[in-house]
Amino acid sequence: MKEFKVTPIRNGTVIDHIDVGMALKVLRIIGVDASVNYTVSVLMHVPSKKGGWKDIVKIEDRELDPSELDKIALVSSDATINIIRDYNVAEKFVVEVPDRVKGIMKCSNPGCITSRNEPVEPEFIVESKKPIALKCVYCDRLTTKVAENLI
Amino acid sequence: MKEFKVTPIRNGTVIDHIDVGMALKVLRIIGVDASVNYTVSVLMHVPSKKGGWKDIVKIEDRELDPSELDKIALVSSDATINIIRDYNVAEKFVVEVPDRVKGIMKCSNPGCITSRNEPVEPEFIVESKKPIALKCVYCDRLTTKVAENLI
Repeated sequence: MKEFKVTPIRNGTVIDHIDVGMALKVLRIIGVDASVNYTVSVLMHVPSKKGGWKDIVKIEDRELDPSELDKIALVSSDATINIIRDYNVAEKFVVEVPDRVKGIMKCSNPGCITSRNEPVEPEFIVESKKPIALKCVYCDRLTTKVAENLI
Repeated sequence: MKEFKVTPIRNGTVIDHIDVGMALKVLRIIGVDASVNYTVSVLMHVPSKKGGWKDIVKIEDRELDPSELDKIALVSSDATINIIRDYNVAEKFVVEVPDRVKGIMKCSNPGCITSRNEPVEPEFIVESKKPIALKCVYCDRLTTKVAENLI
């Protein structure tokens, strides 16, 4: 039954406690597509010890940058990051929804100045972290659908 | 290190030897998205015993229908299907690229009658199985990019 095993990873990152259903969004955030050249494991809809269901994403030989962590927090505020080095968990932390979000999400209002080819970077104030709600600093439009508007 | 294990599945399907990079396409083919309500495991870019790299997709409590198997064969002609029942491999076979393909792919020619809202179902003759090449029976357009044109 060897094919059912996933070997431990030597170096890399385990993103655990992803909101169930969000694993494919997380893959898009961290740039995993058909051209990926490192090993990626994805578990979708597995039981969570906290109750309910969760998704998990493991990536080998890669750590995440702050912008990726912010995006993951926006789509899955309870996700935990386990950084693995030499088979051990070297760091473990819960992602943190930032208070302000700049340049990682576009405004859903087509009339917003940030939607009109002006050199203005989209920026939001986080009005609520759970459930997530962000207000555009330019047009005040409130957005709750983060995943659809990620840049 | 419990989090690195994937438990054996009791019932379901293991799609092994998927062409490396094609796992996300296979997920789309079998309808796995954010609303999935059964456990799915995906391994991308893992070493293949045959040499090179492969992807693997495991789905619990689900078997595949013939149309899904045909689509998988079109994007990954060496994929093997392992049907698991009560923890055992009950059936194992390599997907088979069909000789004709009907209703599962659209023609890439915008001028083709099948592209023009007529009640004509797209149909192709498989000219080559590896690499894959399909000829539209209506306009003779040859298509090698299957994944992009799946319906």
